Amino acid sequence: MSIGAVLLDLEGVLHQDGVALPGSVEAVAALCVAGLGLRFLTNTTTRPRSAIATRLRAMGFAVDDGEIFTPALAARGVLIDLGVARVHLAAPPVLAEDFAGFSLVETAPEAVVMGDLHTGFSWQRLDGLFGMIIDGARLVALHKNRYCRREGRLALDLGPFVAALEYAAEVEAEVVGKPSPAFFRLGLASLGVEPVAAVMVGDDLIADIGGAQSAGIRAVQVETGKYDPRDRDHPRIEPDARIPSIAALPGWIAARENG
Amino acid sequence: MSIGAVLLDLEGVLHQDGVALPGSVEAVAALCVAGLGLRFLTNTTTRPRSAIATRLRAMGFAVDDGEIFTPALAARGVLIDLGVARVHLAAPPVLAEDFAGFSLVETAPEAVVMGDLHTGFSWQRLDGLFGMIIDGARLVALHKNRYCRREGRLALDLGPFVAALEYAAEVEAEVVGKPSPAFFRLGLASLGVEPVAAVMVGDDLIADIGGAQSAGIRAVQVETGKYDPRDRDHPRIEPDARIPSIAALPGWIAARENG
Repeated sequence: MSIGAVLLDLEGVLHQDGVALPGSVEAVAALCVAGLGLRFLTNTTTRPRSAIATRLRAMGFAVDDGEIFTPALAARGVLIDLGVARVHLAAPPVLAEDFAGFSLVETAPEAVVMGDLHTGFSWQRLDGLFGMIIDGARLVALHKNRYCRREGRLALDLGPFVAALEYAAEVEAEVVGKPSPAFFRLGLASLGVEPVAAVMVGDDLIADIGGAQSAGIRAVQVETGKYDPRDRDHPRIEPDARIPSIAALPGWIAARENG
Repeated sequence: MSIGAVLLDLEGVLHQDGVALPGSVEAVAALCVAGLGLRFLTNTTTRPRSAIATRLRAMGFAVDDGEIFTPALAARGVLIDLGVARVHLAAPPVLAEDFAGFSLVETAPEAVVMGDLHTGFSWQRLDGLFGMIIDGARLVALHKNRYCRREGRLALDLGPFVAALEYAAEVEAEVVGKPSPAFFRLGLASLGVEPVAAVMVGDDLIADIGGAQSAGIRAVQVETGKYDPRDRDHPRIEPDARIPSIAALPGWIAARENG
């Protein structure tokens, strides 16, 4: 089947630390000109959708706010499905913008939404969240990444703190970001494209490649960002293709469509 | 088979917050007079063996340091088995006393030993431990209790922070305290008594009762301390007997021996 939509990861694929990767602006423009539907899927939990879009536009990408999908957007849907009104947001305060319409509370929430508080994850903060959960609040995790790169070395990401609360309260968090298959389907649904007609492009073997494939979407890994040559030895996850960088994507799609 | 040894939990069984429970001093004395071997098994990670013994003697219990078994004692054995010399102690500094003979280091350890740092578990502290583990240090957890009672309410215990690091670094900690069967065997071995000839007495259904039974030791639950009437509905763990308090133990043993 022909490719009708492309889902793109941001950090490590389009840009690195806010600087566009070589050829990435031109590649996104070429995909758009080719008539492909585009959606941008990020696991960022520290910026609202509007700020992510503004930042991308400053780098030269032609992107609308509505084309960007973050875990906060996915969490909104989960909270609505759960019938939750009172939400405690354990995430940077700026993220509140993406939870308009919910009652954001400090006590007795019906759900706790966890983003990356980084050094804000103190014993006291975690213990407070534990108290809310054992009092009945549902736990929604924006993602559950184990670690990330900070200042040039591997450091704790959000996932370990989600795991800590799951263990303490004997609950399982609803994890909404990548690699949750529902997150990829959410992005695609807004385009009206079926999974078999889409391709996800990312640098993270687990979150991007494994996640997309589990949603029935083919996945291409770029050899930029957090790509690691050891990814080639992974026992379970194998991308449908690898390309040196996003710059090679329009050519890869054209060759595939004509091949 | 006749009972030759009794393993006793401390907090919630012999005393509560440092105050001997009614009849507990007399009960321990009666067990001793009856010729039973006694060992005291606690999951405390915040006091060394010597301080625990001193505290018990101040409450009126006739106990020698060598009769007390703590997770730190069990950890020593594990570290020796692993051939580890350089240890990073992520526990209250006073616990260093129980690790005499090891080189206690702040960088590049061969093993990280985790006790309960309580509010000392900051993002920075946990991230530092994460760095040691991904650099190759083994993770030894003094216990993995989910929560405990602090100031009258449930609060995070050590376990959630062990779970966080296990998840972050994709490792499994060596958990040495209760309910690890090896911990109960360690206490018994020092008496030269077989599991079938021993009885463990505790208030915690998981750590004391389930742990002892998994080591082949019969277990009696007291209805003091953290005993909860809902323990009677547990789907898997059922003590061999329940008694109102430690004060009833000499009578229970005598009735059993004569019955």
